[in-house]
Formats: sequence, structure tokens, C-alpha cells
Amino acid sequence: MDGERAEELTDLVENSDLTGIRLWLAEHRPHEIADELARMPGREAIIPFRLLDKDRELEVFEELDPSQQQNILLGLRGTDFHDLLEEMEPDDRARLIGEAPAKIATRALAGLSPAERKMTAALLGYPEDSVGRYMTPETVILHRDLTVGRALEVVRARGADAETIYILPVVSDGRRMVGTITLSDLVVSDDDRILKDLVDVLAPRVRANEQVEDAARLIQEANLVSLPVVDSEDRFVGLFTFDDALEVIEAADSEDMARQSGASPVGDHYVSVGVLRLVGARSVWLMLLIVAATLTINVMQVYEATLEEVTALAMFVPMLIGTGGNVGAQSATAIVRALAVGEVRVRDLPGVIWKEGRVGLLLGFMLAGIALVIGSLLVGTDIAVVVACSVIAICTWAAVIGSSMPLLARKVGVDPAVVSSPMVATLVDATGLLIYFSIARMILGI
Amino acid sequence: MDGERAEELTDLVENSDLTGIRLWLAEHRPHEIADELARMPGREAIIPFRLLDKDRELEVFEELDPSQQQNILLGLRGTDFHDLLEEMEPDDRARLIGEAPAKIATRALAGLSPAERKMTAALLGYPEDSVGRYMTPETVILHRDLTVGRALEVVRARGADAETIYILPVVSDGRRMVGTITLSDLVVSDDDRILKDLVDVLAPRVRANEQVEDAARLIQEANLVSLPVVDSEDRFVGLFTFDDALEVIEAADSEDMARQSGASPVGDHYVSVGVLRLVGARSVWLMLLIVAATLTINVMQVYEATLEEVTALAMFVPMLIGTGGNVGAQSATAIVRALAVGEVRVRDLPGVIWKEGRVGLLLGFMLAGIALVIGSLLVGTDIAVVVACSVIAICTWAAVIGSSMPLLARKVGVDPAVVSSPMVATLVDATGLLIYFSIARMILGI
Repeated sequence: MDGERAEELTDLVENSDLTGIRLWLAEHRPHEIADELARMPGREAIIPFRLLDKDRELEVFEELDPSQQQNILLGLRGTDFHDLLEEMEPDDRARLIGEAPAKIATRALAGLSPAERKMTAALLGYPEDSVGRYMTPETVILHRDLTVGRALEVVRARGADAETIYILPVVSDGRRMVGTITLSDLVVSDDDRILKDLVDVLAPRVRANEQVEDAARLIQEANLVSLPVVDSEDRFVGLFTFDDALEVIEAADSEDMARQSGASPVGDHYVSVGVLRLVGARSVWLMLLIVAATLTINVMQVYEATLEEVTALAMFVPMLIGTGGNVGAQSATAIVRALAVGEVRVRDLPGVIWKEGRVGLLLGFMLAGIALVIGSLLVGTDIAVVVACSVIAICTWAAVIGSSMPLLARKVGVDPAVVSSPMVATLVDATGLLIYFSIARMILGI
Repeated sequence: MDGERAEELTDLVENSDLTGIRLWLAEHRPHEIADELARMPGREAIIPFRLLDKDRELEVFEELDPSQQQNILLGLRGTDFHDLLEEMEPDDRARLIGEAPAKIATRALAGLSPAERKMTAALLGYPEDSVGRYMTPETVILHRDLTVGRALEVVRARGADAETIYILPVVSDGRRMVGTITLSDLVVSDDDRILKDLVDVLAPRVRANEQVEDAARLIQEANLVSLPVVDSEDRFVGLFTFDDALEVIEAADSEDMARQSGASPVGDHYVSVGVLRLVGARSVWLMLLIVAATLTINVMQVYEATLEEVTALAMFVPMLIGTGGNVGAQSATAIVRALAVGEVRVRDLPGVIWKEGRVGLLLGFMLAGIALVIGSLLVGTDIAVVVACSVIAICTWAAVIGSSMPLLARKVGVDPAVVSSPMVATLVDATGLLIYFSIARMILGI
């Protein structure tokens, strides 16, 4: 069903079947439409987009990634362009303008009404990955001296213009943050109670210049619908909402996964990203790693005499370094994720090394058993013993390296996710070979 | 600061400093307390837990993982045990009881009030990973013929008992689902309007027996605070809320990352998981992969004569298979993630192969340049040319294999995330060696 629906819209656009497109659009929800548009080249996507009703246009537009939004904007002219921007939520608009080429950005800002322009400029004043860029200033603010009844009147009068009213900021004079009250609590409380007796003063808040990912994880951990944002003097400036937090987390997880595989995050929709951008995102680490792999050649050269004497040793090289890389990748991935979700901290380093070292040792023994059998069957007991002992040492070593590197990275202020599986594998390759040949010399007496 | 706070609670518990613990607890929010408890062994965690105020006890408890909850429950007796369970949200309770050993489960169910027991039993009737297990039946349901004013009265009277009232289900006779109205819309609408004119009939809904991960991704994509759940006859049965969706997504992403590294997901907090469980989770794939690596030995044996003639060929084996594994891992990771967030579908297979094939080819050329330089410097031009040509072929091949395997897995109904980086690397190892030695024979004429 998923497949049929999608083919349909592409086909309809290709055949310029306007009636068909209109019908298709009417039958789908904004996020489904955005999904399909994201898969089309920029110029094609503009056709169905223009056929949307005015009010749905905005909903679909806000579901798109900034680069797709730019594509759409380039295809719109004059009033359509300005109407769309004017109606956008201020935080979404600020991010779009912040990332757009100067030409689009200037045109966009120039066309806004003074009020919207002011709001956008204020948001653009915050650093790029800060909460300030992601918060909405369009909220209903309640003074702590209001009664519930009066507060509800204020919400009913002004709530329609706000992006979100599920969580309402409660302030004292000068917009100083007191705490929050949920719309639910407001609705179920008696009319004559005073807000200051109901407000949750322990409700978490964040500074506008804090990292947006930290704020998003806080929303996730504390199960908040939205999080009040304050300035350096604790004055309320906006709300960071859960839907923006979800997007930030999804993007952060995608970035972590890409980095884990030794690639830079691309950010855009996979289908719409070009080959050259993918190459660019992946090539840096690959080039560094292939240079680092020169170490493995050096190690092999050092032991060239040993290799010439016992050619069979070379045959186990791929299996040994492969296994070491696998064990290291597992440990690194486990720790990177544990760091990301806050289960492990830098000061846990000794405990983590102790735990992973034992895990690696046990895995090493299990795998050594298998290697011993394979080795004995294929080449003989002597070499099989060398291989088995190497497996134990390499697995332990790989687990220790794989688990400690992300923690060390965090300690020196580097994103732990850059400690990718390929990086750990490459490190373990060279050192693993050293271990292997040393053990071989010891046991075989060469 | 993060570090100091944590040391403090552990220290306080170790020193049995009850006053200190009480003070610490008063200064922290439930999710922070749960975080610290999760890091302690089961028996220790019970001490601070018992010192919590009754009303915060529940909040902290609901933030814990089921296995940690079981530990706490085992440390409580009699009325404390039953009070805690009675107060839990029905969906959280059903999941806890569903996963608990039979002994705890029976004791837990027996102690519940008839109303709560009935609700729990109903939720337990749904399959384990279905939305039914995660939804809350405690909602305020509105009939479509109500006026806004009357609906608000209903919400105000009954809202306090509901888990969530941000999104309100609107039904016709027999609880048949009509659509939803947000509390915000209700609050800002005129009192005398009728719900059926305001209700969002296009609001998405899910069946109770659908996969919970699909429902969670829908909440994320469509930015919903909660999602109505219906039975097979379209009758409203509960709400699936965004905070449960966030947990489901975080768990799913953690699982995907673990699988990507060739490990089974462990589920529990990293710090509280024992060494043996980690070994168990990681050993299966490692053992399969080391057996599969026997193929690399076979390939090396086939080309033993070639290797003996030109020992230098062996030196580039780690670099070549490492690079192939890296390129394959990048492609596999990109596609697994694109599948998880819905950017790529099975029918995109030809397009994905075409795109990744070109990416691999270009990366191959870039890396071949570096390999050519390294090879020439270290051993000589002949072999350097062999290595460079092999890099191009292996990178292209690895990108194609790495990207197509997750799609093929999805096609045959297997979780694409099991196509781990180690699995791709192992596959590319053996085939990469075949490519390498074939090229060597061709170019060197041996």
C-alpha cells in the first residue's frame, strides 16, 4: 500500500495530471505529503505544492527540511513567497533564514511584516545550535497574581495566536520566570485560586544560549510537552516544544549513527542528496584511515622474515583483525550510546574499562575455542594454538580500546561519536598484528 | 557539577547518612533521582527510595526501567508494595506486570483494587509489542453532540483523574471514534459551538494491536501529543501519549545501534548490566562471523602459491580488507538509518544500488590515489598498481553490498538493523581478497 501510494504521486506529476494530484493531496495528511515531496527533485516538487490549499501549504512546508524548503521557495514568486514566510512559526522561519543563502535570506526578511521581522531577528541573534533558535516566542504569559478564572480568560482570548498553550509560563513583574502551569491543571482547578499557589516552581527551565540537544534530551527525560526558555537574567523569552525536541533528537541520533560509521552527517533526505555530497561526507575519514593503515604494512614488514618462514601465518590475518575490529566496534558502540542517553559519564572510565576488559576476555576465550578448531583442521595444531592465544589477547585489547576511546574523547571535549567503528577497527588492526606476531614468535620459537 | 552530585548520593547511601539522603532527594527532580538509582545495585537503591515522600515515590518509580522496578518492588513489603502498584499509570503497570516473574506478577495483580485490576487485565490482553500495552485507558471521552461549554465542564470535572487531557477523543454512540479535539482548541473556542463542527476527523488513529514502534514514529512524524487507539470496530479504547512514544523511540534507536555493531540489544541501563549478559548479547554474532571468516582462510589457501611467490602481497591485506569494511559499513549504516526514519523503501533498491555504486567508485578512485603513493614508497610500483586497482574494485563492491543488504533484509521481513557493520565487513573481507588476488595474477602475470 505504501508503495502504490507513492508511485501514484510521482506518476501523476510526471503525467501532469492536475486533477489526479489534487485528489491525491486531499487524501493525505501533511506529513505524508511532505514525505513524498522530499523524495522528488526540487523542480518537480513545486507542482503538487502549488496545488495545495493555502492553509495546508503551510503545514506541509513546515514538515520539510530546510534545504527542501529553500527549493520550494525558489519556485514560488512574489506574494506566495512572502505569504508563506509570514505565516511560518517564528522559530522555524528563523532556522530557515539562518541556513539559507544570503540572497534568499535578505529577500525573505525584507518581505516580512515589522512584527514578524523583529521576532525573527531576535531569534537569529542566538547562536546556531542554541535553544534560542528553536524556541517559539508566541506564547501566552500569565502573571502569578492572576486567579485561575482570570487566567483562563486570558488564555481563551489570546490562545489562538500562540503556537502552544499546553504549558503556560507564569512570571512575576518584569517577565521574571516563576514557574509553569499546565493547561490541564488550569482547566481542572477552581476559578478563584491564585496562580502562585498552583505554579510548579521546580519545573525545569533552560537558558536561551544552551545547546539545543541538551534541552531536547531534558524534554525527553522529564517527559515535558514544552520547556520554558529564559535569558541570563531569568526573564522568560520563549518555549521550546516537544515536537522540535523530537526533530532535534532524531537528527542527533542520525548524526551519531553516521559518525559511528566514520561518515560526516549529511542532514538532508537520503533520496534527495547527490552522489558528490555523499562522497564528501564519507571520504575524509576513509582517507585518514587508509593512511593510518600504513601502520599495518609497517608491522607486516617488520615480521617479513617470520612470514616467509611460516606462510600459513598470513592466512589468519584477515580473521584475526576482523574479529578484533568486531569486538572493538561492539564496545565502542555500546559506550557511545550509553554516553548519548546519559547512562555513563566520564568519571566511570575505570569501571567501564574493568567491565569491558572482562567482557573482551570472556568473548576471547569463546572465540579462541572456535579458532582452535578451525586452525587445527586447516593448517595444524602449532599455528592453531598461536591463533587461539592471539584471539584472546586481541579481543580483550579491542574491548578496552573500543570502550575507553569514546570516554577519553568526551573528556577532552570531542564528540564521542567520532570514535567510529572504522577508527577503532583500524587502531586494533595494527596493534592486533603486533600481538599476533609476538605470540607467534614466542610459541613457535622463531 | 554532574559528577559531584552523583558521588554524593552514592557516598551518602554507603555511609547510611539518612538526613543527607533526604536533603539530596529534596533538591533533585524525579528523573534525576531515577538516573542515580538506576546506577546502584538493587539492594542499595531501595534505601533512598524508601526515604522519598509518598507522592514523589511514584514519579521516580515510573521513570525506572522494568527490571529496576522489579528490584525495588522486591525490596518493598505489604502495603507499600500494593500502594505503589495501585497508584501507577495503568499502561506502565501492565508492562511491568507483563515482564515480571510470575511470582511478582500474581502478587501484584492480587493486591489491586477491582477497577485497576480490570484495566490491567484488559491491557495485558494485547500482544507484547503492541500499542495496546502502551496506551492509557484513563482519559476523558467527549460525545460529538456536546457544546464546547458543556465539554469544558466535563473536562474540568473529570480531568483530574485522567493521565492526559491535551488531546481529547470525540466519539459518537457506542464509543465509536469520530476524531479528536485538542484541549487548546476547546479552550479558545466559543462556548456554544458543537464539538462535531470542531473535531479533527482526519486526526490519525491506530489499532490497539499494531506495532508500538510504528505508532511512535507516527507520533514523531505528525508531531502529536497523543494518538487515539481504537479496536477492530473503530471504538475508542485509549490514548498513546508522546512521552511513551519517546521512550519507545529511544529504545528502538538503542536497539538499532546495538544491532548495527553486531550485538543483541540489552535493554537495561549500561551500569547495572552484568558482564555475562553483555557477553551473551555480543557473542552470537561474533561466533557466526569468526566461522564465516574461515572463508578468508580458504581464499588465502587457494592463492598460497601466489603469496609465496610475492610475499609483499600479504602486507596489503589488512589495509585492503579494512578499507573495504569501512566503505561497506558507511553504506550499510546510511541505508539502515534511512529505512528506520522512512526516507528509503524497499522498492528504491535499484536506485540505491546505482547511487551507492557511484559513491563507492568515486571513493575508490580517491583512496586508490593514496594507496598508489603508499605502495610505491613502501614496496614498488608493480604491487602499488595492483593495490590501487583492487581498492577501486573493492570500494565499489563494498558500497553495493553494504547498501543492498539492509534493503534485501527488509524485503524478506528481517529487521534491516541486523545487517551490521561487522557482518558487511566479514562478507567484504572474503570477496575482497578474491578480487585482490585475481587482479594481482592478472597484472603481475603469475
